[in-house]
Amino acid sequence: MTARGKFISLEGGEGAGKSTLLAGLREHIERNGVSLVQTREPGGTTVGEAVRAIVLDPVQRGMAAETELLLMFAARAQLVREVIEPALAAGRWVLCDRYADASHAYQGGGRGQPTERIAELERWACMGVQPDLTLLLDLPVATGRARAAGRGDADRIEVEADAFFERVRARYRERAAAEPERFRTLDAGQSPAQVLAAATMALEDLLAGARP
Amino acid sequence: MTARGKFISLEGGEGAGKSTLLAGLREHIERNGVSLVQTREPGGTTVGEAVRAIVLDPVQRGMAAETELLLMFAARAQLVREVIEPALAAGRWVLCDRYADASHAYQGGGRGQPTERIAELERWACMGVQPDLTLLLDLPVATGRARAAGRGDADRIEVEADAFFERVRARYRERAAAEPERFRTLDAGQSPAQVLAAATMALEDLLAGARP
Repeated sequence: MTARGKFISLEGGEGAGKSTLLAGLREHIERNGVSLVQTREPGGTTVGEAVRAIVLDPVQRGMAAETELLLMFAARAQLVREVIEPALAAGRWVLCDRYADASHAYQGGGRGQPTERIAELERWACMGVQPDLTLLLDLPVATGRARAAGRGDADRIEVEADAFFERVRARYRERAAAEPERFRTLDAGQSPAQVLAAATMALEDLLAGARP
Repeated sequence: MTARGKFISLEGGEGAGKSTLLAGLREHIERNGVSLVQTREPGGTTVGEAVRAIVLDPVQRGMAAETELLLMFAARAQLVREVIEPALAAGRWVLCDRYADASHAYQGGGRGQPTERIAELERWACMGVQPDLTLLLDLPVATGRARAAGRGDADRIEVEADAFFERVRARYRERAAAEPERFRTLDAGQSPAQVLAAATMALEDLLAGARP
């Protein structure tokens, strides 16, 4: 019987260096002989990418918080069933750019949607599938925004005020503190090489278990 | 103080004659001096029409039932907040081509999503806003499909098997039986003029209340 794969999610605000870290992590995991599926949220499926286009489109500025929450979980429900769970069941690992913690941070902390509402959606929309390890790239809001500023047109969420991103960060940190076994918080103010080194250390226990 | 408007939803399967009836009802209501907002589901808002395009796109054939349910309520949450509730609060009437009963019929009856899950979404996503009157155009599945067959390319839901539409019809009829005060079931096998006459009779109490 194939051992179930491991599910690693990467969380963090704007300009925290998620893309750079994802590339480094992917290389590190594959170098350890692990078959990896990399994906992202919202997105990662045909339905999910179509939902992503709606959610990030600046024209949708009138979107209600409830609508945003439902769209995020629509994309996530599809991703869990079509990509994440089949990969894990086949013994592959999954590295996902954001997962349900992002809804707690953005739709919960940022937009005030109740925690219990989000948790209930996690239960049935995500079939209770949880990451084995969540890496949180933590960075002061001003630093992240300054880094992200040079990237071109901001999407519908990136144009929010600093106070929104402060609530997002605070909710991420609360969740990390409440689940220390699952979360590893990384200081995203370090150099990319330092962040990657800290991330690979956090992965060591999972990788040790995967070695023959 | 303006009296709150009335909310009328129209439900029914394929080929039941919803579009024809909507046009006749609209004319009848406006002839009675009532200011009316006509809208549809999924859709009726910028977000909702974008969601509609995903939900009906045949390319999305792999869509999970949970994803479909969440997308329908995402569109509905937006429609309630942006169109339906503001109109009712301003004293206008709302005539909507489908509403939450459609999720009970299609995602519940058709796709097997639990009733309690749908009811919970109604509570928070729709703020509990319920139609004052729901007109159900009831028709045997075979008759409806034969009527709809000449309309060109079928969308992602229209290509379902007869058994799916039998479950949809059965759930609609169950709901109508359980809430006789809110529902009026119309025999959609009659001529368009007969269906409109029955529908306007069903509306008479609401219209009588709206007359000065």
